Amino acid sequence: MTVPRILARYTIETAYPLEQAATTMAGEQSTGTFVRVPGETDELREAHAARVEELVELGEVATPSLPGSGLPKGGDGRRRVAAVTLSWPVANIGPSLPNLLATVAGNLSELKAFSGLKLTDLVLPPVFLDRYQGPQFGVAGTRRLAGVHDRPIIGTIIKPSVGLSPEATAEQVRVLVGAGVDFIKDDELQSDGPHCPFDARISAVMRVIRDHAERTGKLVMYAANLTGDIDEMLARHDHVVAEGGTCIMASMNSIGLPAMKMLRAHSQLPIHGHRNGWGMLGRSPAIGMSFIAYQKLWRLAGIDHTHVNGIDNKFCEPNDSVIASARECLTPMFDPPHPGCEIVPVFSSGQSARQAAPTFAALGSVDCMFAAGGGIMAHPAGPAAGVRALRQAWDAAVAGVPVDEAARAAPELEAALAAFGG
Amino acid sequence: MTVPRILARYTIETAYPLEQAATTMAGEQSTGTFVRVPGETDELREAHAARVEELVELGEVATPSLPGSGLPKGGDGRRRVAAVTLSWPVANIGPSLPNLLATVAGNLSELKAFSGLKLTDLVLPPVFLDRYQGPQFGVAGTRRLAGVHDRPIIGTIIKPSVGLSPEATAEQVRVLVGAGVDFIKDDELQSDGPHCPFDARISAVMRVIRDHAERTGKLVMYAANLTGDIDEMLARHDHVVAEGGTCIMASMNSIGLPAMKMLRAHSQLPIHGHRNGWGMLGRSPAIGMSFIAYQKLWRLAGIDHTHVNGIDNKFCEPNDSVIASARECLTPMFDPPHPGCEIVPVFSSGQSARQAAPTFAALGSVDCMFAAGGGIMAHPAGPAAGVRALRQAWDAAVAGVPVDEAARAAPELEAALAAFGG
Repeated sequence: MTVPRILARYTIETAYPLEQAATTMAGEQSTGTFVRVPGETDELREAHAARVEELVELGEVATPSLPGSGLPKGGDGRRRVAAVTLSWPVANIGPSLPNLLATVAGNLSELKAFSGLKLTDLVLPPVFLDRYQGPQFGVAGTRRLAGVHDRPIIGTIIKPSVGLSPEATAEQVRVLVGAGVDFIKDDELQSDGPHCPFDARISAVMRVIRDHAERTGKLVMYAANLTGDIDEMLARHDHVVAEGGTCIMASMNSIGLPAMKMLRAHSQLPIHGHRNGWGMLGRSPAIGMSFIAYQKLWRLAGIDHTHVNGIDNKFCEPNDSVIASARECLTPMFDPPHPGCEIVPVFSSGQSARQAAPTFAALGSVDCMFAAGGGIMAHPAGPAAGVRALRQAWDAAVAGVPVDEAARAAPELEAALAAFGG
Repeated sequence: MTVPRILARYTIETAYPLEQAATTMAGEQSTGTFVRVPGETDELREAHAARVEELVELGEVATPSLPGSGLPKGGDGRRRVAAVTLSWPVANIGPSLPNLLATVAGNLSELKAFSGLKLTDLVLPPVFLDRYQGPQFGVAGTRRLAGVHDRPIIGTIIKPSVGLSPEATAEQVRVLVGAGVDFIKDDELQSDGPHCPFDARISAVMRVIRDHAERTGKLVMYAANLTGDIDEMLARHDHVVAEGGTCIMASMNSIGLPAMKMLRAHSQLPIHGHRNGWGMLGRSPAIGMSFIAYQKLWRLAGIDHTHVNGIDNKFCEPNDSVIASARECLTPMFDPPHPGCEIVPVFSSGQSARQAAPTFAALGSVDCMFAAGGGIMAHPAGPAAGVRALRQAWDAAVAGVPVDEAARAAPELEAALAAFGG
């Protein structure tokens, strides 16, 4: 009988012999400790020890990437970088995401043997689906609620991030829905501050969105940022439902996996998972975890959308990382007959009509949100022209028509390309 | 009228002029965005913009600590390190820890202007105590339940971390309580795996602990690791209470702040906050957050104890960082008449009688847990002698007697010093 195992991949940097370093990782996170203890029998090790499944040397570095690492006695003085895959029997912890995190991350990044240790991927057995629901809506459900098919969902964000009253927020939403956007989100800084209480904001905004839907038939999706403590989030969700809203948003790092699981079980709406703070974990190549690993935890917990930055974004993330994250969101976590738990990648940060073609070329799909702030609001002919330009740019990308050629028959696109550089 | 403000301190590294870099941080996390938008009025800025309170240049670095940073046009080519203090009106978010995290951390660490950005401290206005309960037991309550006064609480951990059955765990606890320890904790890898279900383990362990208390009058405190999803944690807490237990343990990074708040509101017992995974945030000097900032969030959310490593620990943390963390746990977060929210610092990792004197000298207090594994179990005269040696070492430290001198009248201590180096 094959016992299901959890796999975790890491990039490590160490002055210790690689085999020894990898064995230390496996021991520390399962049956071992700094010294072998009496209860660590061969039988117990056989059933519960983590295994080193793969170890590939990648190169060397001249200096340690992180402080505090040790040097082995009698070592060869070289500091190697390697890819390590460890595995654990799922029976060590059961299919529990909080316990998984303590097992695959936990104390590992504090071990003295390493001057670099980053979690790069996770492969989980489907038994986790017995306890976690995964995304409730995903790509298909989000498209159905947003009424957008066969093209990206065009989104935007409310700015300034904080300071607008509920009424001022609703006024901005009036402009945006009038411009033809499919999706609007709160900023992650705006949740339930006393100057813009959640319930009042959502009521004011949804009045505008419902009015627009009655006139046009289009119910714009509004991701209401309900990030907060647990009772607050559940009550705010109910208020969004009561007002006819079709999406909620929560900052993943702010609320944690157990709160997300509870929100997912309670929610009647897609969950827009905001990754702010991910840079703390993801930006350094020497420590933390990749977005590839990170988003799998949150997909299982139940998010339907997440942010991946965008091509040529204004943050520090390079394009290949952006695209790897976006593709991963659309890649099944489990094989059939299990659900794949695919979610909607959200491109944002400095996006305009210029990025449609390279994004489509790299992603190979229109299953995404494409969010622009300035790319819509700062269009020379106004926000409606901004939205039209984005759709024209994506239509051209999908049709394989170069964007400058397409712009000759599309004045909004032509103006956007002129306004947003190239 | 003075509006209460939230203060956050950072260490930054940037090739941009420092004033400009600090202003970018303040703008990104409050009313600004990459470009000024129409709704960002002067009145709105006045009421809601983050302010740069202090900016102190600390030095320069030759190369960027993190990838992805940008270079300013026309810059002087120097890359500076500085301490920055920002402040926000609490009215931007209300006294909400999840929203605080999105505000003081959030997207900051992804900003292109920075090749290093680490949150080093937080100062919160007392209005947070309107919504968060802080520690329920703290130092005094933990001492009362553990029955330990005027000296450190001597603790130990169950090893191997995973693999023991409930009965084997209880057998190990039998040895430890017999040895005279005050406190025993589960490993963070052991929660509710199918080979060692939580309820069965706690029942088996508490039977041993209750028997011992009936015979000796000493009820040893056992931190039962209930880390899991929310309903699981609440039910597990109730089981610990039903079995007469006096402590629960949760991995902070695994559960998140809202779940901790809920656990605190539900709990009748002290919460042992395990920081595993903190190295992901804390180890790099270039990114993440200091433990000084981190532990304030969790104290407000309700933990009573947390780990700080120990002097000459086996992980990568230097001694000055260990002691700074421990002292901070005992430092009030708020002035009277508000509660200070002090918690018990837990020293662990490679601790033995050798570390008592330098720990006391640096901490200036016996208000701590002092946890040893090998330092107890591997004592040449057995675990009871190991516990006695630790108490002898602390008695000597408090009395100002050098440990080698004290050992001449204390055979267990003498043997410990011989066994554990020096």
